[in-house]
Amino acid sequence: MRFLRCLLAIIAVTVLAAVHAAEAKPVKYVFLFIGDGMSIPQRMMTDEFLNRTEKRGLLINRFPGQAITTTMAADSFITDSAASGTAIACGEKTNNGRIGMDATGKRKLQSVAEAARDSGRKVGIVTSVTLNHATPAAFYGHNASRGNYYQLGLDLVASDFDYFGGGGIARHDDKKDKLYRGDIYGLARQAGYTVSRSKEEFGRLKPGVGKVISVGAKADLPYAIDMDADTLRLADFTRQGIELLDNPKGFFLMVEGGKIDWMCHANDAATTLREVIDFDNAVRVAYEFARKHPDDTLIVVTGDHETGGLTLGFAGTGYRSYIENLRFQKCSRDRMTDQFRKLEQPSFEQVKPLITEMAGLVFAADGRREKGGLNLTENEEKTLQEAFERQYKDGKFTGGAVLTDAVIRLLNNKSAVAWTTGAHTALPVSTTAYGAGAELFSNMIDNTDISKRLKQVVR
Amino acid sequence: MRFLRCLLAIIAVTVLAAVHAAEAKPVKYVFLFIGDGMSIPQRMMTDEFLNRTEKRGLLINRFPGQAITTTMAADSFITDSAASGTAIACGEKTNNGRIGMDATGKRKLQSVAEAARDSGRKVGIVTSVTLNHATPAAFYGHNASRGNYYQLGLDLVASDFDYFGGGGIARHDDKKDKLYRGDIYGLARQAGYTVSRSKEEFGRLKPGVGKVISVGAKADLPYAIDMDADTLRLADFTRQGIELLDNPKGFFLMVEGGKIDWMCHANDAATTLREVIDFDNAVRVAYEFARKHPDDTLIVVTGDHETGGLTLGFAGTGYRSYIENLRFQKCSRDRMTDQFRKLEQPSFEQVKPLITEMAGLVFAADGRREKGGLNLTENEEKTLQEAFERQYKDGKFTGGAVLTDAVIRLLNNKSAVAWTTGAHTALPVSTTAYGAGAELFSNMIDNTDISKRLKQVVR
Repeated sequence: MRFLRCLLAIIAVTVLAAVHAAEAKPVKYVFLFIGDGMSIPQRMMTDEFLNRTEKRGLLINRFPGQAITTTMAADSFITDSAASGTAIACGEKTNNGRIGMDATGKRKLQSVAEAARDSGRKVGIVTSVTLNHATPAAFYGHNASRGNYYQLGLDLVASDFDYFGGGGIARHDDKKDKLYRGDIYGLARQAGYTVSRSKEEFGRLKPGVGKVISVGAKADLPYAIDMDADTLRLADFTRQGIELLDNPKGFFLMVEGGKIDWMCHANDAATTLREVIDFDNAVRVAYEFARKHPDDTLIVVTGDHETGGLTLGFAGTGYRSYIENLRFQKCSRDRMTDQFRKLEQPSFEQVKPLITEMAGLVFAADGRREKGGLNLTENEEKTLQEAFERQYKDGKFTGGAVLTDAVIRLLNNKSAVAWTTGAHTALPVSTTAYGAGAELFSNMIDNTDISKRLKQVVR
Repeated sequence: MRFLRCLLAIIAVTVLAAVHAAEAKPVKYVFLFIGDGMSIPQRMMTDEFLNRTEKRGLLINRFPGQAITTTMAADSFITDSAASGTAIACGEKTNNGRIGMDATGKRKLQSVAEAARDSGRKVGIVTSVTLNHATPAAFYGHNASRGNYYQLGLDLVASDFDYFGGGGIARHDDKKDKLYRGDIYGLARQAGYTVSRSKEEFGRLKPGVGKVISVGAKADLPYAIDMDADTLRLADFTRQGIELLDNPKGFFLMVEGGKIDWMCHANDAATTLREVIDFDNAVRVAYEFARKHPDDTLIVVTGDHETGGLTLGFAGTGYRSYIENLRFQKCSRDRMTDQFRKLEQPSFEQVKPLITEMAGLVFAADGRREKGGLNLTENEEKTLQEAFERQYKDGKFTGGAVLTDAVIRLLNNKSAVAWTTGAHTALPVSTTAYGAGAELFSNMIDNTDISKRLKQVVR
C-alpha cells in the first residue's frame, strides 16, 4: 500500500511538472484581482484585524494556491505600478513608468486581456482608481510613460474591451495633449460604448447592452472607510462586470483595489486595512460565482508591490500586538485633514474632541477611556500639541497634513504597526488562487509568470 | 492530446492531495535548517546583495518547494524563538517562553528529532549559538521556561542524540540551579559522549567515535563577518554532522543559523546578511550530499520568525536601492563597539578614520570617496559627532553602543534598508525545500505543519 502510494505520488509529481512546463487547460471564467501596494504585511495585518474584531479572516488568504511572487522592474529592485502592472499583464519585465511597452519604450507587449479578447472572450477591467491609472492601463494601454493619461484613454477606447467599471477616466478632456481628438467619453460613445456616470444609470445596465463604461465617481471611488451604504463599491462593479460579461465563450475580468497603495503611501494603517477588506469583498463576489461554476472558474489574487515598508511590530510595543486598536479610526487621512482644514482659528482645546472622535485618542483631562478609546500619555499629548502648533500659524491652516499624520502615527504605533517609507519597497508579494488551474500558482514565482500562466488558460 | 493532459493533471492533483492528507514516503536523510529571525526580507536582502556583488543568489531561495509560513504563538501574534522552535520541532502551538511543552507548561510534546531517534535513526543538532538556546533546545528539551539553561543542558544529555555541534553549552556548571548535579560536560562524558572543545579535537573525530558533543567556541560561534580563515563555521559542523551520522538507517539533522536573529535585534543589516550567507553555505553542504543521494534526501529550510521589522526601502531613498553599499561594513556591531571602547580619551578627529575603515563612511575633510566609501553630508557628519559626544563623557566611554548604532543606522539608510523595532514582528517566513518530499512544502502553511510533515518522513 505504501509502495503504491509512493509510486502514485511520483507519477503525480512527474505529470504535474509536465503539465506546468507544457500548456495548462483553458478555463472559461478567469478572474485576476490585484491589490495595489498589497504585499504580505498588508494581508497579514488585515487578516489579524478581522480575527480579533470579527472572528474571521480574509477569504483571499485561504485560497489553496499560494505563491511568493517577486516584483522587481527591469531597471529597479523597487518597482512602480507601471512596470509591475505591465509584468503581471504582459509577462515581460519593463522599466518603471512604462505601460504595456518593453524596457526600451519602443516595442508593444501583448497583455493577457488582449489575448483573451483575441481568442473570442469578453473582457472586463474594474478598478477603484481611475480607469487609465497605471495598473488597469497595463491591460489595454501601450505608452512609454504612465503620465500620458489622455493617450491611455485613447487606448482604452481602441481596446474594444467589453466592460470598464469603477473610477472615472483621468484627464479625459485634456486639450493640451498633442494627440487630442475630443473628450474620451465622447469618443467612447462614438465607438459604441454605453457610458454610465451615475448610480441611476448604473442600475439600468442590463445584459445585452453591449460595450459599457460604468463609472461610479468623477475620479477614483471614495475610501471604503469613508463610504456610506449608498456608495457603489468595488464589489458592485465586480458583480456588474460578471453579469454583463457572462457568455458561452467565457470572459477575463481584472479587478484592481487601487487605493490600498494610496493609504500605504500615506502610512495610514486603518484606512489601508478597510481597503483590503473592501477588496476581499469584491473577491468574494467572484468566489460565489466560482462556487456555481466550480470546473470552469479560476480566481487569481495578487499584489503589484509592497508600499510603505509596513511592519507588524513596533519598537515601542516590543513583542505585543494591538492591531485591534485600529478600529478606533473612523475616517481616512484625507477626510481627517479636511475636518481639520475646516476649523477657523481653532484652539488646541477645540481640536481635541475631534481627535478623540476620529481616532479614538483620549486626552487626560477628558475622561480617560470613558469614551472607549486609547489613553494618551503626557508625552503623546505634547506631540499632538506641537503638531497642532505647526498645523495652524496665526490661527490659519498651513496646508499639508501635519496634525493628521501625527494623530495617525500615534494610533498606528499604539496598534503595534510601523512604516519606514512613503514610497514602495522590494518585499515580494503573495499570489493566491482558487478553482480550475489554481495549482499553476504555487511555490516561488515572478510577477511575469502570472501573465504567462494566465495566457495559457484564456486561450 | 489536450484532453489526455487535462485528465492526467486532474488525476495528478487528486493523488497528490491524497498523499498530502495521508502519509508521505519516509526519506532516509532528512535535514532541517532554521534561520533564526530569517524571514522574507532577510532572504531577499541577502539575495539581492549577492546578485549585485557576486552575480549569484542564495541557494536556499532557489529550492523548488516554497511555502509562506505563519509563525504566531498560542498566546501572542508575535512569537518568540521558544514558541516557534517548539511549533517547528513538535507540531503544536505553545506560549512564548515554553520549550517542548504545551501552552499550559505541563504536558511534554514530542519533537521530530525524538521521533526520528525512536524510529532507529541517528540524530544531530547543530547551531551557531549555544546548544541549549531556545531553538536547538526545542528539539530535545522540555521545560516551561527557556531561561532554565542548566535544566535544558540535562535534557540534552538525556536525549541520547548522536551529534551536537556548534556553540557551547550555556551555564553548564550553574551550581545555583535547584536541579544541579554537576557540570553538564562532565555528565555528558559519564553518559558516553565524546566531548570536543577545540579545533584540534574537532579534527580527530571520525565515524565510529560514538555520541559526540563538538563545540567550536566557549559560547556561540563568532559572527561570520568577524571570522578569519581558521574559524570553525556552521558549514564545518554540518559536514561533520553528516560524516558522523551517516548510517544504513538514515538520520535527522537540524542546523540553526542562530545569530541572524541577534544582528536583526541590533538592526545591523551588513552583519545580518553575512550570517545568512554563512547559513546558505551550510545548506550547500547538505545540498552537495543530496546530489549524491537524490532519491534519499530531503532538505527543508525555514525561519522561526522575522526580527527587526526589516524593510527593503527607506524614506530617504524613495524608489532607489543601494543594498550593495552594505559591503563597506567590515565588522559586526559588537566588534565595532569594542574598537570604540578601546580608545582612550579620543577626539572626534581620532574616531573618524576608524568609522571610515569599519563602515566606509568618508568625511568631507578626508578625501571624498578616494577611500572607496560613501560620502557623508554635513548633516550626517553632525549626527555622528553628536553620537560621539554622547558616547564619550569627559573622554570616558559611557557604555552601550551609541556611536556604533549611529554609524550603522547611517550606513543602513544609505543602503536603502530600514528597521522598525529591536524585537520580533509577525511577518510570515518562507519555507523552501529540495529533494524527496519537497512537494510537501508548498502553498501557505503554518510552522506547526513543518513538524507534522517531517514526522511522516522520519518514520
